[in-house]
Amino acid sequence: MVAELIAVGTELLLGNIANTDAQFLSEKLSGLGITVHHHTVVGDNPQRLAQALETARGRADIIITTGGLGPTYDDLTKQTICRTFGRELELHEDILEEIRTWFRNKLGREMPENNVQQALLPVGCVVFDNPVGTAPGCAFQEDGVHVLMLPGPPFECRYMFEHRAARYLEQLTDGVIVSHEIKIFGMGESSVEEALREPMTRSANPTLAPYAKLNECMVRATAKAEDREAAEAMLAPLVRQVRETLGDVVYGVDVDSLEAVSSGLLREKGLTLSAAESCTGGLVAKRITDLPGASAVFRGGVVSYTNDVKAQVLGVPEELLEAFGAVSEPVARAMAERCRTICGSDLAVSVTGVAGPDTDDRGNEVGTVYIALASAEGTVCQKLSCGKGRGRDRVRSAAASHVFDLLRRYLTGLPVGV
Amino acid sequence: MVAELIAVGTELLLGNIANTDAQFLSEKLSGLGITVHHHTVVGDNPQRLAQALETARGRADIIITTGGLGPTYDDLTKQTICRTFGRELELHEDILEEIRTWFRNKLGREMPENNVQQALLPVGCVVFDNPVGTAPGCAFQEDGVHVLMLPGPPFECRYMFEHRAARYLEQLTDGVIVSHEIKIFGMGESSVEEALREPMTRSANPTLAPYAKLNECMVRATAKAEDREAAEAMLAPLVRQVRETLGDVVYGVDVDSLEAVSSGLLREKGLTLSAAESCTGGLVAKRITDLPGASAVFRGGVVSYTNDVKAQVLGVPEELLEAFGAVSEPVARAMAERCRTICGSDLAVSVTGVAGPDTDDRGNEVGTVYIALASAEGTVCQKLSCGKGRGRDRVRSAAASHVFDLLRRYLTGLPVGV
Repeated sequence: MVAELIAVGTELLLGNIANTDAQFLSEKLSGLGITVHHHTVVGDNPQRLAQALETARGRADIIITTGGLGPTYDDLTKQTICRTFGRELELHEDILEEIRTWFRNKLGREMPENNVQQALLPVGCVVFDNPVGTAPGCAFQEDGVHVLMLPGPPFECRYMFEHRAARYLEQLTDGVIVSHEIKIFGMGESSVEEALREPMTRSANPTLAPYAKLNECMVRATAKAEDREAAEAMLAPLVRQVRETLGDVVYGVDVDSLEAVSSGLLREKGLTLSAAESCTGGLVAKRITDLPGASAVFRGGVVSYTNDVKAQVLGVPEELLEAFGAVSEPVARAMAERCRTICGSDLAVSVTGVAGPDTDDRGNEVGTVYIALASAEGTVCQKLSCGKGRGRDRVRSAAASHVFDLLRRYLTGLPVGV
Repeated sequence: MVAELIAVGTELLLGNIANTDAQFLSEKLSGLGITVHHHTVVGDNPQRLAQALETARGRADIIITTGGLGPTYDDLTKQTICRTFGRELELHEDILEEIRTWFRNKLGREMPENNVQQALLPVGCVVFDNPVGTAPGCAFQEDGVHVLMLPGPPFECRYMFEHRAARYLEQLTDGVIVSHEIKIFGMGESSVEEALREPMTRSANPTLAPYAKLNECMVRATAKAEDREAAEAMLAPLVRQVRETLGDVVYGVDVDSLEAVSSGLLREKGLTLSAAESCTGGLVAKRITDLPGASAVFRGGVVSYTNDVKAQVLGVPEELLEAFGAVSEPVARAMAERCRTICGSDLAVSVTGVAGPDTDDRGNEVGTVYIALASAEGTVCQKLSCGKGRGRDRVRSAAASHVFDLLRRYLTGLPVGV
């Protein structure tokens, strides 16, 4: 089964937003064993949309549109699709009632009359109702091509795909595609590719492919089989081989992020964490508190962006700051140790470095970062050179990732520097 | 001039990454007065790329490809473009030398032999050298269609567009398009649209169009004219009218973000800030320290994610925490005041609320957030209902935006709650 995604919206062509719906849907479709060959974006323009639909129906089994289901004059997806595929629109009274109710309950006002057009849907379609917005979606089949319409706003698109459209598509596919993602920190994509050349070129099923991500990389192992069990049996030895080849730079399989892995380890061991941050300015704390339930493992911390705050709030000895400067191993160690004490956590991490754009007053280069981890057993410290030449954001995000990797290594008994 | 963007990369069709290059380029092209009618994404597949190129050359004056310029066997953009447009590839010795040097200096090793293919470029093209990566880009014209090739990695794509390709395109366009972005916080897109219906429908040039952004919205005023001066003369009264109509929800014109505006005001007034954060968990500090030069205005703060840290590090009286709970006005006020004291800043902000996924132990609903601002003059506090029903990330990001808006309002003498 081959699918094509058509996004409708002038805001995409003006660059106001990225087409994240296409990313989301592509990833989901791949998981359903549906191959995507094209993404197309057109504006709120019925001629160009009609043309894109004609092209897509000639080369795809499934067409999924996103956007253009709103109540305003430029929302023309349903009308254009119906004209292209020779269907009429008809009013769905039950959907209209749902939209009226949504306005009353969620927005506290009566539905404006132009929202009636959102309840017009192609004759004979499967309706995808929308409990998180006003635009319903739908699906129908014509001449062997399945056409699905989803709303454009990412939250609604995701919800409707997961709760409505996925089921429709599952019924169309033979067999399953199962993937496992092997996440890697501390080894570049090209080195990973070199190390895994043999299993990566060995077969067309299962496959193994590398992907670069921000500050890290990932290898995806994918198998196509009759059922999940058969696919898993093909994948198990492959995943094992990757883990054995790459060693401890693999931080997890099918895990979300380094911070999720570190948090999980803290939770397992019943340990709490705090963080003292200078150059990352709250990013470590932000990333760990992005995770629901963070309060079970994260107590808090200090963003000691200036030396005064390092000394007065954290209690780093002023002599250390004067003798070694803020960006130094003794200060990183003291930050972690003091943070652990004042926050009353089992472990504390610290980061101090030069995020840029300029070198610091002691001539430390942009990207020079010290990180430390303090525990009851003592303190370990690492000197890093982060995100060189890639700008302030990259230095900060790489430094924060290193902190979570240090934590993971410490909690799993791997070597962690000095 | 009409442009079409073609992104090449199977990773886009698998959903590993979003096509952010298309967003970036579309925004830049719009600024150059070049209209984009289509984005297309194809995989690393020469047949489908060739087909996309054939389609594009029939309907666009400018084709810009991103991706597929790497050194591996599946990087086929240049070869496919040359076949489609009837050009040969030739080796550029100077570019090859640059790539060799890049490997030696940046990566500390010799260039692998397969990188030689990156120095192969179409005969007679304009070369875009790449000082931030190994893949050079290029441009040529054939039968009145301009073809530009840019690398896929976003950092390289942006750099090459801004420093190389933009100049090439500027020479192709007649007249200029000038835009101003009027940034709005505290008023929804539909209310903005309602308030500005008359100027939004008044003319085709200049135009006024609204855009929803995360937690805020934006109105873009755009004029097409012979030169910048004429365009600015058309825009000035329009921007003035928008400001007058919307009032103080407009937080700036052509500014980056609420935090950039607030930081700029702090800098102007020579004031320093600190932040005490509970539910935002470091996000306020992270956003202000994203800005280069943040250390001139931001001293630091405390991420008091637990009550213990609120009491022991910030010094919030335990009686307050017990009597009112962490998510309350008295605690928000005390957090800001204590933070101001211990960090020694002129102003301090605080946030405490329920980010979710669950209500807190006192039954406060997800999205209930208190923010406060302490100064020498006293403390103001606001109770908010943030990002309702949109999940943890939205609650947190909306709360942080409200903090920066409170700061902006305070610093410009606008009303700021009680």
